[in-house]
Amino acid sequence: MKKYKLERILYSENRIFYVPSIEKDFHTQYGFVKKNDLKKKSGIVKTNLGKKFFIMIPNYRDFFDKLLRGPQIITLKDIGLIAFETGINKESIVVDAGTGSGALALMLSLISKRVISYEIRKEFYNLALKNRELFGIKNLILKNKDLKHISERNVDVIVLDMPQPWDYITECVNALKVGGYLVTYLPNVSQVMKNIEEQTTFKNLIHIKTIESFYREWLINEKQSRPKTEMLGHTGFITISRRII
Amino acid sequence: MKKYKLERILYSENRIFYVPSIEKDFHTQYGFVKKNDLKKKSGIVKTNLGKKFFIMIPNYRDFFDKLLRGPQIITLKDIGLIAFETGINKESIVVDAGTGSGALALMLSLISKRVISYEIRKEFYNLALKNRELFGIKNLILKNKDLKHISERNVDVIVLDMPQPWDYITECVNALKVGGYLVTYLPNVSQVMKNIEEQTTFKNLIHIKTIESFYREWLINEKQSRPKTEMLGHTGFITISRRII
Amino acid sequence: MKKYKLERILYSENRIFYVPSIEKDFHTQYGFVKKNDLKKKSGIVKTNLGKKFFIMIPNYRDFFDKLLRGPQIITLKDIGLIAFETGINKESIVVDAGTGSGALALMLSLISKRVISYEIRKEFYNLALKNRELFGIKNLILKNKDLKHISERNVDVIVLDMPQPWDYITECVNALKVGGYLVTYLPNVSQVMKNIEEQTTFKNLIHIKTIESFYREWLINEKQSRPKTEMLGHTGFITISRRII
Amino acid sequence: MKKYKLERILYSENRIFYVPSIEKDFHTQYGFVKKNDLKKKSGIVKTNLGKKFFIMIPNYRDFFDKLLRGPQIITLKDIGLIAFETGINKESIVVDAGTGSGALALMLSLISKRVISYEIRKEFYNLALKNRELFGIKNLILKNKDLKHISERNVDVIVLDMPQPWDYITECVNALKVGGYLVTYLPNVSQVMKNIEEQTTFKNLIHIKTIESFYREWLINEKQSRPKTEMLGHTGFITISRRII
Repeated sequence: MKKYKLERILYSENRIFYVPSIEKDFHTQYGFVKKNDLKKKSGIVKTNLGKKFFIMIPNYRDFFDKLLRGPQIITLKDIGLIAFETGINKESIVVDAGTGSGALALMLSLISKRVISYEIRKEFYNLALKNRELFGIKNLILKNKDLKHISERNVDVIVLDMPQPWDYITECVNALKVGGYLVTYLPNVSQVMKNIEEQTTFKNLIHIKTIESFYREWLINEKQSRPKTEMLGHTGFITISRRII
Repeated sequence: MKKYKLERILYSENRIFYVPSIEKDFHTQYGFVKKNDLKKKSGIVKTNLGKKFFIMIPNYRDFFDKLLRGPQIITLKDIGLIAFETGINKESIVVDAGTGSGALALMLSLISKRVISYEIRKEFYNLALKNRELFGIKNLILKNKDLKHISERNVDVIVLDMPQPWDYITECVNALKVGGYLVTYLPNVSQVMKNIEEQTTFKNLIHIKTIESFYREWLINEKQSRPKTEMLGHTGFITISRRII
Repeated sequence: MKKYKLERILYSENRIFYVPSIEKDFHTQYGFVKKNDLKKKSGIVKTNLGKKFFIMIPNYRDFFDKLLRGPQIITLKDIGLIAFETGINKESIVVDAGTGSGALALMLSLISKRVISYEIRKEFYNLALKNRELFGIKNLILKNKDLKHISERNVDVIVLDMPQPWDYITECVNALKVGGYLVTYLPNVSQVMKNIEEQTTFKNLIHIKTIESFYREWLINEKQSRPKTEMLGHTGFITISRRII
Repeated sequence: MKKYKLERILYSENRIFYVPSIEKDFHTQYGFVKKNDLKKKSGIVKTNLGKKFFIMIPNYRDFFDKLLRGPQIITLKDIGLIAFETGINKESIVVDAGTGSGALALMLSLISKRVISYEIRKEFYNLALKNRELFGIKNLILKNKDLKHISERNVDVIVLDMPQPWDYITECVNALKVGGYLVTYLPNVSQVMKNIEEQTTFKNLIHIKTIESFYREWLINEKQSRPKTEMLGHTGFITISRRII
């Protein structure tokens, strides 16, 4: 089976091109770049029509833009809040479920010791396997299993991106270390309400906060100094709880 | 000189108490907890008046709440965006300036290989030294120097939280690796405009995006399901550029 | 009983002073303005200490700032949305309940033919009477009655600012003209859900939209070009329905 | 020339149809409604295929949705803020420029005594003439003239929706009554800065505030209780100043 790769990126003014493989020529509307030129790791390459590109080795941020997308992919603003509101760091053990495309698990695995991600749907599990290839990392363990079978203990942070996280509170609390965080990511207020209501029956769990965030891009150049007209009105509500005993 | 410490946290319903030292009794309005009880790393402790608390070892997220504050401290939502929009990871070398209280440098050092932070003002440098003690980490290098003297090379990400970042573009570009990111964090649109205008004169730098974000907390409980009335209307604009050659 | 009045306003750089009566001298920290000087309707007046003020006749916008406040006062952004999303105009008959301080009823009475406002709590009814004096208008009818006793028919718009608007749907639908709007203003999502759920059992009512809005002030001057730090995170959700038969 | 009209609206579950004329049959994808049936002012009509619609006389809110659009049309949230932040009421004389499609002038004419609107571009002036026909109102005076030729005096509110409002400050201040408001509506922060800078050279004008607002629609039904994904990230900055002498 072919590996999912991104080997180079090409910049030209406001355009960016993603080159999956340096083993063959790369075609654009401005002509093609020869595979031998694609071997360069920086500098300038030219197409057969004379168009110049800056060539670069992609990094994880570039990989994020090229993730294979199945379900809705979580935004970077939400990944950032989840990571820093729970103090995830290089020593952290993180569990997430469901994996989906793996976007969250992959980004968190870049900054933590190990991420273990549960996904019951086979097609998403397979999708995440491909995306893990793209990132080329080793500390993300993908499991095609229901979170009910969680075997990890002493976990720092658990993140649930699934419609009914309240079905898994017992398992999560048992897996968390004292002081560890349980995070749920939910689109509807009714789900957040149900989730918090169920959690309050657990005496060893305390609700810390529920947050939402907005992200707005600006156009700043010679002629403009204003926000973009396009903006995402909603992604999800992040609810953070903590195991206290 | 006394070390700046946070050794335990105590939870009680919606209250949280921060215990700086387990070497002496801790007093609250509900009575005091004896120092011997504070040695516990989890479980329940009682005050002399019978009030129960859940006791825990603090983590980095707790440390963040107890940072000594001099200048305005950057918010976690902004730290999250800076980290993930630039793909910072366990192998990253990050430079920031000015250090200020060290909040950004400390949080980024938790997820990267090494952070080097420049600060010209002695009092902030000293403040950051104290805050580094609190975090107890070794991969944050604090320099009481002007960023003009930056000696690092092949840097993945540089973050500038200073009023005139355009004075340092040459130094930053030289320090960055090809494909690395230059991030500025600025409160005023006029500064963002000036910054981008100056950056466009550098042919090896490309403006990726300028963003702002909002963070809103919700009250969800038996009686309420609504956003909090308090909200921060503004923190700063994040401008991200990239070295392309 | 003394009338509630605002007879003049005084501007000085960034300060504004509200002069309740021109029948007596007005005192400020910069000295006092003599009552004879306060009779001026425009121009400049001086305090005994030589401080200059611009003097003006107040308008309705100024009155709004000086409303006696009992319950939470609805914001202008929300009044604006309610008015324009329902097409209120000089020929409109509007009903609102509960009156509260009368802020909404007063502002809508400025732009419509007549507003009839219901309030069961005597103390708020009395407060609204005082505020109507301040505005000095005649087309706002205040009723110290439960909306259950609504006698109006062929109403263009009904606005409910009360905790359980679903108790009054039958009365509202009967009072509205075909094509007229029923607006509810509610702080909690759970109330909005309950309200819409109840409304859907009425075959002659259709849910048009539910909206929330944000308002952010900016600081623009020689030194600043940024949003204010203070911002209201939440006021209320506006739900608009329409009688269709 | 044919008049621009909207004579009936038809509701069906979540769909709304706009019937321009009752002088001919109205066709939909569900069949057509006979012109004789369209004469009804309320109740139910059926298509030849048996589909039922609720029929209604349109109001100004419906007209707003059917405005002929040339330039960007100002949003209702912004119209609402402009109207209520300046206390516009049934006795107000309002001037606006440039007219554009006339959306702002039309909505303000519904709630004020008279609106006079200036537009230099002939094609927009003609567009506004058509839109005024749709509204069928008499208190909006459209002028195909540069605002430099403003003849009105003692004006309550002037609203400028044009790229260089600073070219007209002298004319506006002269036209305003003492205590009257000058409002500018601008997309870029740089324009707002320039505008305020120019205004500060006028000693009889004081900057009151600069605001922006956001509008977010929610999906609330049996299955959902969340904001819509689509949201407008930016419309314009509203700057309000006041003539003080």
